[in-house]
Amino acid sequence: MCELLGMSANVPTDICFSFAGLMKRGGGTGPHKDGWGIGFYEGHALRAFHDPQPSFDSPIAQLICNYPIKSRTVISHIRQANVGGVNLENTHPFSRELWGYTWTFAHNGQLDKQLFDWPLRFYKPVGTTDSEYAFCWLLDQIREQFPQRPKNPDALIALVADCAQRLRALGVFNMLLSESEFLVCYCSTKLHRITRRAPFGEAQLKDADMTIDFCSETQPQDVVSVIATEPLTDNENWHKMSEGELAVFRLGEIYTPNIVPAKLEGSVV
Amino acid sequence: MCELLGMSANVPTDICFSFAGLMKRGGGTGPHKDGWGIGFYEGHALRAFHDPQPSFDSPIAQLICNYPIKSRTVISHIRQANVGGVNLENTHPFSRELWGYTWTFAHNGQLDKQLFDWPLRFYKPVGTTDSEYAFCWLLDQIREQFPQRPKNPDALIALVADCAQRLRALGVFNMLLSESEFLVCYCSTKLHRITRRAPFGEAQLKDADMTIDFCSETQPQDVVSVIATEPLTDNENWHKMSEGELAVFRLGEIYTPNIVPAKLEGSVV
Repeated sequence: MCELLGMSANVPTDICFSFAGLMKRGGGTGPHKDGWGIGFYEGHALRAFHDPQPSFDSPIAQLICNYPIKSRTVISHIRQANVGGVNLENTHPFSRELWGYTWTFAHNGQLDKQLFDWPLRFYKPVGTTDSEYAFCWLLDQIREQFPQRPKNPDALIALVADCAQRLRALGVFNMLLSESEFLVCYCSTKLHRITRRAPFGEAQLKDADMTIDFCSETQPQDVVSVIATEPLTDNENWHKMSEGELAVFRLGEIYTPNIVPAKLEGSVV
Repeated sequence: MCELLGMSANVPTDICFSFAGLMKRGGGTGPHKDGWGIGFYEGHALRAFHDPQPSFDSPIAQLICNYPIKSRTVISHIRQANVGGVNLENTHPFSRELWGYTWTFAHNGQLDKQLFDWPLRFYKPVGTTDSEYAFCWLLDQIREQFPQRPKNPDALIALVADCAQRLRALGVFNMLLSESEFLVCYCSTKLHRITRRAPFGEAQLKDADMTIDFCSETQPQDVVSVIATEPLTDNENWHKMSEGELAVFRLGEIYTPNIVPAKLEGSVV
């Protein structure tokens, strides 16, 4: 399995603190030694870093911990390989362009191999993972139904929810997906989220001897949500997402669509 | 204007030495302070680094100089902006997926604004540069004519040459393009190339007090070609490409296609 980390914020925010915790799990405090990646949105473009080496002693991961890259939307992933070899082609997050937006995707879980029979049209995987195949299929569905970016995102979110449910029927499908503005998080088995806002407090990482006082790092109006497979801090109240829950974030806040796919009723937040 | 740097090699090779010279021109010895980027192929995937900050004092560029990432095909670019603001969306190299290959593109020059009237179909620009628009248009032509990757690349190379000539008619169009295996270099006004092979010698960077003895860094069978806007070393014999010349590299060697578009006769190598 793998671990996911996502962030949505209303101001460009650095993710150094959370990433410092995650990277320790990449071969250090955790077994996810088969590469890692992170993508930071700046506008509709993505600044991505990928490394098929373990994160806990990666010079590139160290740079990201020390060099604050500020972004409103971030997706990161550390990998413990199941389907597909350990190489750059199979290193999340994956990205593709649609409507002039760079879409980014990371997945935790494993899907039945019948997935590879699902037809692909526009997007083809570069590597051999079930994850990238699922992303290509998902983006194909979006592209076919929405040749242009819709002004109201609700029908698009409903489509993503529906596709996530179809993928989940093939196995474990915890997912982070973004086109820059919205961060869509789907929980199949395990995903936690927390929204930090004023009054900000202090947080202590679980995986490293590191504490941060968000009060001194933030402005009173800042809102920052973090989504992770497992809580990254041990003195804060993380919300455990339920199985089948879809959470959409925009500018740090939960975005609630008006159109809810029938099967998800009650579990879209 | 901008500066281009490309590499094609028959063994995974680090580009630290050449990149160290190029990055000095990014706001140091040269005026190209409006961002930089580099993409290293590993398999059909690309490990890319982008930074809208000047390269000469960028911590990310410093990392790349010090941390050898080995690759057979590399494309890099430092930018002096003309069309499009200084931001990540407009930072070369640009990349898109076609046939499960990550295509990468960097451009030096400026194209007439009538380019933006050329219709796009599959690929849309994320930023606002003429360069990314030209890349989207070029990849559209390839995708339409070659829905699948052709076994023999010659007709594909002829198409790229033809598209490059059409783009050159709009202004200055020096280009590096790759899908991982082939590195296509098109010279509209200024591009230099060198192929290093045994017996290897010593090289001295023009832009930094740095010398390398390739003999101690290489094996006798290694072949490495470097393509750059301006020669990067001052004690080697760089070949100045002629206007309208297309050079294709594969595994460090010049690849000569059998199909040559009529207009390019004599200048394809």
